[in-house]
Amino acid sequence: MLIGGIEGGGTKFVCAVGDESGNVLEKISFPTRDPEETLKDTKAFFDRHSIEALGIGSFGPVDLDKDSASYGTILNTPKTRWKNYPLLDKLESDYQIPIFMDTDVNAACLGEYMYGAGKDYESCLYITVGTGIGAGFVQSGKIYQGRNHTEMGHIFVRQHPEDLFLGNCPYHGTCLEGLAAGPSIEARYGKKGSLLSNNDKVWEIQAYYLAQALINYTMILSPDRIILGGGVMKQKRLYRMIRERFTEMLNGYLQIPDASEFIVTPELEDEQGILGAMALCK
Amino acid sequence: MLIGGIEGGGTKFVCAVGDESGNVLEKISFPTRDPEETLKDTKAFFDRHSIEALGIGSFGPVDLDKDSASYGTILNTPKTRWKNYPLLDKLESDYQIPIFMDTDVNAACLGEYMYGAGKDYESCLYITVGTGIGAGFVQSGKIYQGRNHTEMGHIFVRQHPEDLFLGNCPYHGTCLEGLAAGPSIEARYGKKGSLLSNNDKVWEIQAYYLAQALINYTMILSPDRIILGGGVMKQKRLYRMIRERFTEMLNGYLQIPDASEFIVTPELEDEQGILGAMALCK
Repeated sequence: MLIGGIEGGGTKFVCAVGDESGNVLEKISFPTRDPEETLKDTKAFFDRHSIEALGIGSFGPVDLDKDSASYGTILNTPKTRWKNYPLLDKLESDYQIPIFMDTDVNAACLGEYMYGAGKDYESCLYITVGTGIGAGFVQSGKIYQGRNHTEMGHIFVRQHPEDLFLGNCPYHGTCLEGLAAGPSIEARYGKKGSLLSNNDKVWEIQAYYLAQALINYTMILSPDRIILGGGVMKQKRLYRMIRERFTEMLNGYLQIPDASEFIVTPELEDEQGILGAMALCK
Repeated sequence: MLIGGIEGGGTKFVCAVGDESGNVLEKISFPTRDPEETLKDTKAFFDRHSIEALGIGSFGPVDLDKDSASYGTILNTPKTRWKNYPLLDKLESDYQIPIFMDTDVNAACLGEYMYGAGKDYESCLYITVGTGIGAGFVQSGKIYQGRNHTEMGHIFVRQHPEDLFLGNCPYHGTCLEGLAAGPSIEARYGKKGSLLSNNDKVWEIQAYYLAQALINYTMILSPDRIILGGGVMKQKRLYRMIRERFTEMLNGYLQIPDASEFIVTPELEDEQGILGAMALCK
């Protein structure tokens, strides 16, 4: 059976076709623009293939409540042209096949759970630290969903004593995303994180926020493994710094595996999103 | 079928027998002392009844990993005589019947979910704010469990700008429990919360911490309803204050029900723990 996947990110869309075991036959990507233009490119790609099911991991927030009239609609996004856009309805009117939708980060988590760093674990939490911060949680093969989907990037964290930044989350100012997503680094220091590799303080502050978030996720979800990905995590030393801070903050309270086994890098490079989107079809 | 329940709290033990619909036939309670003394009283009660199953909601942390050699053992507790005590093994050696164990707060959450404020909801989070802070989460009739049980009272929160208290959690200092459990109020002001009813600042600070915790739980778990109980919540005005703070902090980011419907009082008075312990037998 040929299945399709869409990794619908805020910056780019990735479309792929492949089989049910995660083998990709063809894949393209293009920038995310207005919904009409973006979906025109999407349609042009899938029209060339006879897919029998389609999975989409979309940027959000997305209404994932199946009982809601706006199920499958993009909700409160800063991308104004996408706000309230009925993405699932639009795709369903284009293709008369089963379509499975979830958030981008939930799909990425499923990808890592099935084929990557989470594959030998009962559950895993996947966090992406990039333009925003999001997390997905898969347990026993099932994406965790509450009343609606989770929004783990918007938890409140305590501010680092040497960080005077006011935060740049438009809703919460200094929530985790407002303090530790990529744009907060640029807003604070006037340049991108990738140009600040030698500035220890930048990464010490970053590790402080992320370790704190991981403590909260661990206390609330008790995951078997935590996978940290996204553009900001390309600063590889962050892993060591976060593990050290995490161990220090946890202070032996929980019996968990060694931090180097518990907090890990993704194994699928940048493929977890599209593989996870395809895996939504199962 | 006659079933038994034990609400094994850090301060008192409650034992009850009843039926599978939550009707209690007889109930006693006594102070929690050393394990031997406490379980002697427990045994004396159940020896008078022919129960066919027993549920226990225990203070913790407890090892709830069924694959672990120490399954059913009390772990790192400040109650030194109970530390590493194999509670489930002990009960199983006393009674040749199925015994179901979970944490006290998970059992209480199940009680409210089945018979109380959570009964018409797909999921509910139950938080108790008393000697410590703990929370349980039930979704689709099932107590949420991760790798081990959750420890939601020990999340990190940001400190209220007017609160200079250093926190009294022996592991984390100023985690939520260290800043907002009953003993932190007494440590800060030199008297119990019940004697500080007229001091607005005390409750403003308390509401700040609890609202922040509820934001984090909501972002991470997306529950359908949040039930707040425990001794500290006997200050009824806290509900209004927490709802106001919560709404303000959330700042319209999520579409959730009105705070007065979302954040509520328990409906079972102090019966959720024992009813939930009995309900573990199902």
